Amino acid sequence: MNKFLAGVDVGATQTKVAILDLKGHILLKDNFSTQMHRKNALIDAVSDLLDSLSRRLRLKKRDFLGLGIGVPGLLDFKRGLVFYFINIPAWKNVPLKKLLEKKTGLPTFVDNDVKVMARGEVTYGAGRGYDNVICLTLGTGVGGAVIIDGKMRRGQDLVAGEIGHVPINEKGPRCNCGGIGCIEAYVGREYFLKEVKKDIRRGVRTSVLAISNNRIADITPEMLTKAALGGDRYALNKWREMGEHLGVALTGVVNLLNPELIIIGGGIAGAGDLVFRPLRETLKKRAMAIQGRTAKVVRAKLGNDAGVIGAAELVKINLLKKIS
Amino acid sequence: MNKFLAGVDVGATQTKVAILDLKGHILLKDNFSTQMHRKNALIDAVSDLLDSLSRRLRLKKRDFLGLGIGVPGLLDFKRGLVFYFINIPAWKNVPLKKLLEKKTGLPTFVDNDVKVMARGEVTYGAGRGYDNVICLTLGTGVGGAVIIDGKMRRGQDLVAGEIGHVPINEKGPRCNCGGIGCIEAYVGREYFLKEVKKDIRRGVRTSVLAISNNRIADITPEMLTKAALGGDRYALNKWREMGEHLGVALTGVVNLLNPELIIIGGGIAGAGDLVFRPLRETLKKRAMAIQGRTAKVVRAKLGNDAGVIGAAELVKINLLKKIS
Repeated sequence: MNKFLAGVDVGATQTKVAILDLKGHILLKDNFSTQMHRKNALIDAVSDLLDSLSRRLRLKKRDFLGLGIGVPGLLDFKRGLVFYFINIPAWKNVPLKKLLEKKTGLPTFVDNDVKVMARGEVTYGAGRGYDNVICLTLGTGVGGAVIIDGKMRRGQDLVAGEIGHVPINEKGPRCNCGGIGCIEAYVGREYFLKEVKKDIRRGVRTSVLAISNNRIADITPEMLTKAALGGDRYALNKWREMGEHLGVALTGVVNLLNPELIIIGGGIAGAGDLVFRPLRETLKKRAMAIQGRTAKVVRAKLGNDAGVIGAAELVKINLLKKIS
Repeated sequence: MNKFLAGVDVGATQTKVAILDLKGHILLKDNFSTQMHRKNALIDAVSDLLDSLSRRLRLKKRDFLGLGIGVPGLLDFKRGLVFYFINIPAWKNVPLKKLLEKKTGLPTFVDNDVKVMARGEVTYGAGRGYDNVICLTLGTGVGGAVIIDGKMRRGQDLVAGEIGHVPINEKGPRCNCGGIGCIEAYVGREYFLKEVKKDIRRGVRTSVLAISNNRIADITPEMLTKAALGGDRYALNKWREMGEHLGVALTGVVNLLNPELIIIGGGIAGAGDLVFRPLRETLKKRAMAIQGRTAKVVRAKLGNDAGVIGAAELVKINLLKKIS
C-alpha cells in the first residue's frame, strides 16, 4: 500500500503545503499568504489547502502517514508546542501539534524551520551521506542546526544551534538577542541593509542607488548582487566583508566541532560565490589545519523546497523510526 | 573477584601513575619526570612504576582489568596511535597502545589528556550526572572537550573540542595555531604572562614586581593571584580581563550548543573567583536568555587526580562498554 506525506513550511511571507511520496518527492504543492492567515486561520488554511491538494491527487486521509510542519520560532519539538512564532506576534504557547491533529486527523510533527530545512538537506540535498554537518540559513536572521554523529543536537533546553549568535568581536554592534558582536548583527538582512543604506546616504559611489531607482529605502540584497555582478566595487566589497565575517564565525565552529560539511542556505546565500569565495578563503586561512582541510562549505541544494521536504521527513523519522 | 585499573597521566612536567579500584578510587599513586624519560624510556618508566606500585599493593598483573593513559597531543584514540606529543618533540606516530600492551601485558587505551580529564570530571567530579558538558583546561594552552547527549564528541577527524581556538576578535593577536584572535592567544599562560611582563617593563604600578623579587622573567600566574588577593588593582584587572575574554568565547559555545555545565580546570583556574566572577557575569550578560540561564560555570573538582582517574575510566568504557 502506497503511503504519502504532508509537508508544511510556515515562512515569513508564504506558507507552503506539499504532498510527497515516501522518497521525499514532491507530487503537488501550493502556498498561501502567512500574514493573511494568522493564528487559528493558519490552522484552517493549512487544512483546507491540504484537502484541495489531496482531492487533485485523488488521495484520502487514510493514504497519508502523517503531517510534518516547520515553523519559525522557539518550540518544544517533542510536544509540538510553539512558545512563539517569529512572524505572528501575540500567538504564544500554541499546541500546534494538537490543533493540527484535531483539524486534519493526521499524526502531526512540529519542528523549527531551520532544523527542518537542515533535515531536508541532510536527507535529500547537499548533506546526503554526511554525519557531521553544520547548517546555516542567511536571511532576516541567521539560523543554524548542528548535526553531530548523524543526529540533530538540541542541547539541554532544545535551543542549541544558534550559530547566528556566535560573537565575532568583543566590541561589536549590539544584537537583537541582547548580545554583542554576534555574527547576525553583521550579516543579518536588516543589519546588513542598514549599513548599506547608511553608506549610500553618506554619498558612497555605487551603482546600487541607480539599480534601486534612487529609492534607498527599497534597496534589497538582490540589488547588491546585481551591482556586484556588474563590477561595482562597493557592492563587491560588501559581499566580501560578509563572507569574511561568516568565515570568522565558522572558524570557531569548525575548530570546536570538526564537521565535514557546512551547508548554507537562505535568501542572502543567493549572492553565491560573491560571499562563498571570501568565506572559504577566510576559513582556510584561519581554521586549524585538520579542521580547515576537512570542512567543505556548500550551498543548500533543495532551495525553497527544503522546508516542505524536511517537514515531511519529520513524519518518517517519528513514525518509521529509521533515523533520528 | 576484585579487579583493578591502572591510570596514567602524561603531563608536561610529571607523568603520574595510579592504581584504582573499579569505583575510581585511587589506592596508590606516584610520579616521575616526563622530561627525563622521553620516548621509549617513558614506556619503560610507566611499566616500572606500575610494577613497583603493584608490589606494594601485592597485586599481580592478572588483578588488573587494563591500563588507561592520557597524553598531551594529537592522536587517534581508536587505534591508540599518537601523531605527536606536545612536549616530546621528534616522537611522532607512536603506536602507544601497542607499545604499552607489549611492555605491561595489560589491555591499554589511549586518549588525549583533556578528553581524559573531562571524562574523569564527568564520571566522578564536577560533571557527575550531566549529559551536556563543555570542559576547558586553562594552562599553557587552552584545551577542551565537548560532551553532548552523554557522549564525548570527536568530530570527523577526531580533533573536535578545540575551544582554545574559538576566535573572539576578527582583528586580534596571531595565535600559534595560525589563526587570529583565538581565545588561547588572550588567556593561554605564555600569551598572558607576556602581556603582564610587557606592562611591568613599561612601568605599570603593581605589587607583582615585588612579589617576584624584581625578577620579571620569573613572574607566574600564581604571583598575579597573590597580588590580586592583596588588592592590587593591576592584577585584579588582568584577571577580570581574562574572565571577560573567556566569557565571550563561551557565549558563542553556549549559544551554539546549549550545554548545562561548563567545567574549567587547569593551573590558571587556580585564580578562582578572580576569573570565575567576571566570566559568569559576561556570560550572563551576553549569552541568549535560555542558554545563559542554563549554563552553569564550575571549577573542576578532581584537581591533579582528574587525569589518572579519567585514564582508568577509559579501561572500563572500552572493556565494560557501560558508557561510551
